[in-house]
Amino acid sequence: MSDRPGTLYLVPNTLDLGEAGLPDDLAELLPRRAIRVAARLEHWLCENARTTRAFLKRVDAVIPLARPLQQLSIVELPRPAKGRPDATAPPPLQLLAPALAGADLGLISDAGLPAVADPGAAVVAAAHAASIPVVALPGASAIVLAVAASGLDGQSFAFVGYVPVAPEPRAARIRELEAISRRHRQTQLMIETPYRNAALFEALLAHLQPATRVCVSAGLTLERGFTRTNSVVGWRSDRAGLALPNDLPAIFALLATG
Amino acid sequence: MSDRPGTLYLVPNTLDLGEAGLPDDLAELLPRRAIRVAARLEHWLCENARTTRAFLKRVDAVIPLARPLQQLSIVELPRPAKGRPDATAPPPLQLLAPALAGADLGLISDAGLPAVADPGAAVVAAAHAASIPVVALPGASAIVLAVAASGLDGQSFAFVGYVPVAPEPRAARIRELEAISRRHRQTQLMIETPYRNAALFEALLAHLQPATRVCVSAGLTLERGFTRTNSVVGWRSDRAGLALPNDLPAIFALLATG
Repeated sequence: MSDRPGTLYLVPNTLDLGEAGLPDDLAELLPRRAIRVAARLEHWLCENARTTRAFLKRVDAVIPLARPLQQLSIVELPRPAKGRPDATAPPPLQLLAPALAGADLGLISDAGLPAVADPGAAVVAAAHAASIPVVALPGASAIVLAVAASGLDGQSFAFVGYVPVAPEPRAARIRELEAISRRHRQTQLMIETPYRNAALFEALLAHLQPATRVCVSAGLTLERGFTRTNSVVGWRSDRAGLALPNDLPAIFALLATG
Repeated sequence: MSDRPGTLYLVPNTLDLGEAGLPDDLAELLPRRAIRVAARLEHWLCENARTTRAFLKRVDAVIPLARPLQQLSIVELPRPAKGRPDATAPPPLQLLAPALAGADLGLISDAGLPAVADPGAAVVAAAHAASIPVVALPGASAIVLAVAASGLDGQSFAFVGYVPVAPEPRAARIRELEAISRRHRQTQLMIETPYRNAALFEALLAHLQPATRVCVSAGLTLERGFTRTNSVVGWRSDRAGLALPNDLPAIFALLATG
């Protein structure tokens, strides 16, 4: 163990999930400082090694990697149950071994910021407990971009992850979120796996009050991306124009009014 | 009114609040795409015209502005009561007149994303109501960077803005947020005006349960920036090392455990 630990850098990824037809220049999508740090890190923790290697190839095209991609250490975080992550399982301190030995370490997600709506938070908590400095490099998160673009309340908002899939618990959870939104005047945000986007949207329109406002935000940085907000009653009479993607994660937000 | 409205672009600002000694190259801190869009916009809505002009000078140094700064339209949003913003007042549709007439329009905050913890959300809501397309350009928000760097629960978190200043309502609100955090297993995030940072931190340590985890995040992109997390009991015995700035906004987060 070194006298002085390395730093755990939280490296932002783009929001495009590697979709085809993207700009070659990663500096169009990420601050250059994040690219610069990413280019020199030799140890990575990630959600998915394949997408991390794809990201590092995009980095290399802007700022050459300090070492060849094949020589980097890229370790996947233990995977929680698919689609319903659980941040409570403590990660083995082993994952932080490079930082404890004095080397800087990168943590990266498939899209947006690590440790937000992904399994990385437990690693960050372990870093704090081990007195490893944690530095979050600025980058975008689709969640908070959805808050901004929604026009719903940005002074108070909550991200609650996934809602249940089975119809009855789902309806109950949607009504609970609406009650919380009304009580605290707080925007409530959810995510869904892409192929269930349409089903969640229909459930929101079925179970929310007519005046409650609902926002859908998808593919924010892509040509086909959009953010649209309407009341439940407005959506019910005018949802023909909404082309909900079944291949991109969407963020759904609601704000109860009155 | 044009047949086709312009787009309302939500333009990210840096998180540095124009602190001295920053990199000259704005592309170090923001994605180039945001800088490119900012350089061509001729109509702006903002929190503060002075800081917006300072931002646009930094843009101009990377990508020349389409028109001289003096010829741009820069309009300040109506200001809510200092330090306790209220997003509910509807903005005059007049503010969106350039977009209704077919020109693109930028919305920008003093730091981070517009319409998140600033008065911009009502303008975005009015844009949706007027069928003006809303595009959020990717950029960082200190709030969600604090979530990432905290190591607290990033699967469920709420930003609640300011807490009351007077001691008794403040203590009650802190206890309420802890109860909400415990009930929903949800990280709760607050902001405070810089000169009250130390007072809020002491109030958190005084009123929260010993095992509750508390994170402080300040000046994230600055040399003196930091994010640190500990339990209340840990902080009580080891807060000498925490140099809370009184000139930078800080974000405070709590997560009740057990």
